[in-house]
Amino acid sequence: MKYDYIKTVKQKNPLVHNITNYVTVNDCANILLGLGASPIMADDIGEVEEIVSISNALVINIGTLNDRTIASMIQAGKKANEKNIPVILDPVGAGASKLRTDTTFRLLKELKFSVIRGNSSEIKTVYYGSGTSKGVDADSADIITEDNIENVISYAKALANQSGAIIAITGAIDIVADSKKAYVIRNGHPLMSKITGTGCMLTSILGAMCGANQDSMLDATAAGVCAMGISGEVAAERMEKYQAGTSSLKMYLIDTMSTMEEELYQSRARFDVI
Amino acid sequence: MKYDYIKTVKQKNPLVHNITNYVTVNDCANILLGLGASPIMADDIGEVEEIVSISNALVINIGTLNDRTIASMIQAGKKANEKNIPVILDPVGAGASKLRTDTTFRLLKELKFSVIRGNSSEIKTVYYGSGTSKGVDADSADIITEDNIENVISYAKALANQSGAIIAITGAIDIVADSKKAYVIRNGHPLMSKITGTGCMLTSILGAMCGANQDSMLDATAAGVCAMGISGEVAAERMEKYQAGTSSLKMYLIDTMSTMEEELYQSRARFDVI
Amino acid sequence: MKYDYIKTVKQKNPLVHNITNYVTVNDCANILLGLGASPIMADDIGEVEEIVSISNALVINIGTLNDRTIASMIQAGKKANEKNIPVILDPVGAGASKLRTDTTFRLLKELKFSVIRGNSSEIKTVYYGSGTSKGVDADSADIITEDNIENVISYAKALANQSGAIIAITGAIDIVADSKKAYVIRNGHPLMSKITGTGCMLTSILGAMCGANQDSMLDATAAGVCAMGISGEVAAERMEKYQAGTSSLKMYLIDTMSTMEEELYQSRARFDVI
Repeated sequence: MKYDYIKTVKQKNPLVHNITNYVTVNDCANILLGLGASPIMADDIGEVEEIVSISNALVINIGTLNDRTIASMIQAGKKANEKNIPVILDPVGAGASKLRTDTTFRLLKELKFSVIRGNSSEIKTVYYGSGTSKGVDADSADIITEDNIENVISYAKALANQSGAIIAITGAIDIVADSKKAYVIRNGHPLMSKITGTGCMLTSILGAMCGANQDSMLDATAAGVCAMGISGEVAAERMEKYQAGTSSLKMYLIDTMSTMEEELYQSRARFDVI
Repeated sequence: MKYDYIKTVKQKNPLVHNITNYVTVNDCANILLGLGASPIMADDIGEVEEIVSISNALVINIGTLNDRTIASMIQAGKKANEKNIPVILDPVGAGASKLRTDTTFRLLKELKFSVIRGNSSEIKTVYYGSGTSKGVDADSADIITEDNIENVISYAKALANQSGAIIAITGAIDIVADSKKAYVIRNGHPLMSKITGTGCMLTSILGAMCGANQDSMLDATAAGVCAMGISGEVAAERMEKYQAGTSSLKMYLIDTMSTMEEELYQSRARFDVI
Repeated sequence: MKYDYIKTVKQKNPLVHNITNYVTVNDCANILLGLGASPIMADDIGEVEEIVSISNALVINIGTLNDRTIASMIQAGKKANEKNIPVILDPVGAGASKLRTDTTFRLLKELKFSVIRGNSSEIKTVYYGSGTSKGVDADSADIITEDNIENVISYAKALANQSGAIIAITGAIDIVADSKKAYVIRNGHPLMSKITGTGCMLTSILGAMCGANQDSMLDATAAGVCAMGISGEVAAERMEKYQAGTSSLKMYLIDTMSTMEEELYQSRARFDVI
């Protein structure tokens, strides 16, 4: 899980097509640029096939989904599948409403995903078919701890096997798994939950990581998750050092991702392979 | 108007459902998280009833309204009323277009609001049935001053009586009133008008304050208005100290709200009860 | 190309109606406020005629266009033309999809623009009828350099003549031209390409510049382009000085625009007239 996967993004400058929510979209675009990728946001059904065709990855985020954009997600995703362009899913709030849960299953049925990233409640909903969420946050009963981690890895691998996608479950501890191998990542900081969009930004970054490293998507996804956790750690340290608040935290997080060099990455990345 | 109302938000972590505009939505989500609440943004008619049902408050902000979202506002609001969940209205730009004015009156007719927050032009439009706005800003003729404050308090109380809602009018001086009692709040800083979203952010915060303090909504609303004013003051002082600009001001404002402790609040809150 | 055009914005406080994308809209609103203008964002067809009628300029940005907003753009633009209110076009991604290219030509056919601002790929698409873009960024083949600048000025003037609009092409070197006269502006910094929205923010600023300086729109447009470049330079210098990252860069950029005083402007503005 080397820094090389990040370096590849800086070299290849992948174009990442995002069909995403209007809450965190600006941060997603800026963190992609910071990392070295190029973002494009386009959600009209009249152009998504064309836009995705010139892109290196497609990110589908259902954060503020509606009928119009769901149709665009399907159409863009089909074209991406046809052209073998990696598609990343962020099932924001799956479990919180029937629309979100049903849309997630519809997307999973009609499209093939390279990566599915969510919090533990969202991914449990995807795996078990139903679940609970506290809005767009994980239900406290679903938090990944050292005690339940074996179980989480096990359903992550099972879901990877069933869906063919890499599964990324993020929270206090992060899991990135395919059907055989799982990374357990212990980067990040609790303060990250005090800003909106850390999940969405990570999902967009995974688009860049997979778009630039299509032959090593599991490792590249894990590297992206590490990089996000490291950015959160550095940001939280700066916030505390300067006695700042959560808006500074968000700025420091994107700042750190935009200056993520090999030394910082290698000295901070904390993961096990299981 | 104690700090306790803010502490309750941090303890109860209310989920606040926002149907709001795409201009300031990210700041609304982040300031809610900073204060200790959880935001969820959802505007599709296929899910708003479900989302509001798991929420502790609903915020309706017409900043970038359209036919699709107006229908969702009505449906979410009816469900919230049915379940006795506080609903907060921000009639952004009422008076600036027929669509905004008519939508405001339609919402007032079909829904029961716990709080209506706007600038003086917007609230005058709600009370007198027509009015002027300079776009989404208050008309200069409507600014609250020490000279016209008696009159403003009087129509705020009358509107509270007529609508059953707490009325929050914000500007250089802020008024928070029900039919019998009015708070006159002198926190805030003129530089707050140089960033977009201070009104929207405050309205979202009032959702959190009312959701967590449903038995004391007048006092909790006044406390929220004070907290926003204090955040603006501290932010303006930092901006001037560091010779920064208005983007820093916005960051400092959210930073301050996210670190609002009892000592700062109590030492700064400036209000009279009339 | 005096600072006076900026001072006029601060004095007249023009209301700028933006029909724009949901990616960078918050930054557009904040930079307009920082400069001394007032933003209003409104895209429902039920209100755009009324809103534009009380405004001093209309900005049409197709960054996340869709059927609903395209219709609103046309209707708002016709009303603005009828009332002699300057209309500014940002053809984001023209050349990247048929929808964007076709919409650009439809807007050009149905409306009269005061200014068209884009990167070199977008403007080439407008001029030559087809073109390439890397998503929303200029194709590397289209970058303006000292070698091809004569050619760019020549097609900028030709397009200005053909369309009746001032043409602003921004990149490493910026061109602002009408059919007879061209400004070549050498402000700005390469790091500006690492944040989203510098183009969108500039387009919104040109709305303010033209709205407040309707008798000198060429000079006012050039002054706005200089001010944006200067803001980027100062921001990049601060980012490097403080070893910060790209999110800080965006903040410093808006900070600088919000504190743009005559001395800074006059000492930094770098341009030739051809």
